Amino acid sequence: MMIAKSVRRLKGYVPGEQPKSREVVKLNTNENPYPPSPKCAEVLKTFDLDNLRRYPDPDCTELKAALAKLNHTTPEHVFVGNGSDEILALAAKAFVENDEAIGSLDPSYSLYRTLADIRNVPWKGNELGGKVSLFLWTNPNAPTGAWAPPEFVAKAAKSFKGVMIVDEAYADFSKGNCMELATAKGNRNIIVMRTFSKSFSLAGLRVGYCVGPKPLIEALTKVKDSYNVDAIAQRVALAAVKDIGWMHANVAKVVKTRERTRNELEKLGWQVAPSESNFLFAKPPKGQKAGAIFAALREKNIFVRWWPKRNVRDFIRITIGTDQQMRVLIEALQAR
Amino acid sequence: MMIAKSVRRLKGYVPGEQPKSREVVKLNTNENPYPPSPKCAEVLKTFDLDNLRRYPDPDCTELKAALAKLNHTTPEHVFVGNGSDEILALAAKAFVENDEAIGSLDPSYSLYRTLADIRNVPWKGNELGGKVSLFLWTNPNAPTGAWAPPEFVAKAAKSFKGVMIVDEAYADFSKGNCMELATAKGNRNIIVMRTFSKSFSLAGLRVGYCVGPKPLIEALTKVKDSYNVDAIAQRVALAAVKDIGWMHANVAKVVKTRERTRNELEKLGWQVAPSESNFLFAKPPKGQKAGAIFAALREKNIFVRWWPKRNVRDFIRITIGTDQQMRVLIEALQAR
Repeated sequence: MMIAKSVRRLKGYVPGEQPKSREVVKLNTNENPYPPSPKCAEVLKTFDLDNLRRYPDPDCTELKAALAKLNHTTPEHVFVGNGSDEILALAAKAFVENDEAIGSLDPSYSLYRTLADIRNVPWKGNELGGKVSLFLWTNPNAPTGAWAPPEFVAKAAKSFKGVMIVDEAYADFSKGNCMELATAKGNRNIIVMRTFSKSFSLAGLRVGYCVGPKPLIEALTKVKDSYNVDAIAQRVALAAVKDIGWMHANVAKVVKTRERTRNELEKLGWQVAPSESNFLFAKPPKGQKAGAIFAALREKNIFVRWWPKRNVRDFIRITIGTDQQMRVLIEALQAR
Repeated sequence: MMIAKSVRRLKGYVPGEQPKSREVVKLNTNENPYPPSPKCAEVLKTFDLDNLRRYPDPDCTELKAALAKLNHTTPEHVFVGNGSDEILALAAKAFVENDEAIGSLDPSYSLYRTLADIRNVPWKGNELGGKVSLFLWTNPNAPTGAWAPPEFVAKAAKSFKGVMIVDEAYADFSKGNCMELATAKGNRNIIVMRTFSKSFSLAGLRVGYCVGPKPLIEALTKVKDSYNVDAIAQRVALAAVKDIGWMHANVAKVVKTRERTRNELEKLGWQVAPSESNFLFAKPPKGQKAGAIFAALREKNIFVRWWPKRNVRDFIRITIGTDQQMRVLIEALQAR
């Protein structure tokens, strides 16, 4: 009684540090260095506060319509959540029985494992069968940045009996994506998930969405809280979608900086994994330890990400910031 | 596989209608007829959009501190959620094993039953023992408006082995509340939940919070999404708390209108239950059917709430609006 056994055991997910200071060169949580569309600012400046008296639209009607149009589908194939995180938690409810399991790529976003712990079912790395009824495929993957072509994902999904969520948080930074799999007529089990947190520079807003077969979208809708996305977030996200060119321009800048940074790291003797995202997964030159570099950078107020886990501990993950921020980073690494 | 059995069976909660038209006299979802504090508008007007680039504070540090102060406790006794709805869903995860049950008052907020369905455990009306490990006590209750004194709630909680959440969504409209039970030193199992949706006129914002014993608050924190409350909502709610006088003034107006409306309904031969909330639960005079009145009012663009369920179908629930709105309602009822 009182606290459930599985929750007592639970460690909980530890998100990347959010330092209060603006002095920090913050390259640790894959945020966008450029601001969101000025159309979003307009929404806030002109927002009629009286709208907050009432409950928000439980169906996110306008936002869903805009997202459906953007992705060449219809609103009943779209689900909007309080961040992608909420969609993942709802999927763990809707698509997983108590005696089933959740699978994901490994290494990948460490939250997936916590998600299985919270749902109180086993987590399986790189397993697309057995008891696994929900598989989370981050594409491009984090923290590696690696990208799998849609044909490859489609083939894996075809032989899979459960639901596959392709978490495309970083897809706007990639050369391709799986959205056409999600909207395809015969699609039975592929959901593609996107977020406003990365390419749209709206991590603070908490809006994510996914596209997939109608029965799966309906199941997510059944298990969600009635009013899961607030009235302001719905309008701000809508403004961002309508000004999609702004997002694409920011993405182009990030991709350019990413490739320049890769070059500079390689000149310094780093091994850098191919990346189709807004971060680089990089291994320091021989004789240098990733964990030590992470700590030394932190001393200099440069935050990157490092995990002590065996299969990733030789690397650091560097979010792509502005050119100026990357210069500070490269200079700090040169000085070592 | 694919959609979980319990979800396939699920009906889902049907929230009160949110008509798009402003012409409607909307007395159906217990919203506040008066606008939120102008300080909230200031937050939106001056919000630095660059803050949205980054993830929000996962701990709602400032808001929690303000809420702790307001309720004479410390932040580690406070949990903030994406509306009270999220807190309820998290409690169903944190405090209920797969073979336990969720209890609540009956009649009460019909969402509780859906919550148990989603959690895939039985729901028990008015049962504070047996398999019930989480009991939801709405106080004042909805839709009846009835209020139980803290001594009575404390006594019930004392003999209960599970967690009791006192849902005080309407407490600001009442003559008393249970907050002192939640903050009391020896408290083991009482959580008091509040919302910004009613008295603070911020239903569209999605912020709720609860106060309780540290171990229970920690358990809720473990199972929540990392960034469950967005950056704008945190700041707007904080502004509302800091301008608490505005809320109290609105509440006083609503309470005054409530008592006047009760009087007028009674003059028309209605039976009106005592109410410590921002709504009235009222039974029409002999010979008139509540369901028919509900439908007739709807024809006139006056929205109230009615449920066909056996134990409540003889009543309609009327949210207290402005004096002008209540006059429209009373005139419509007089004209029958």
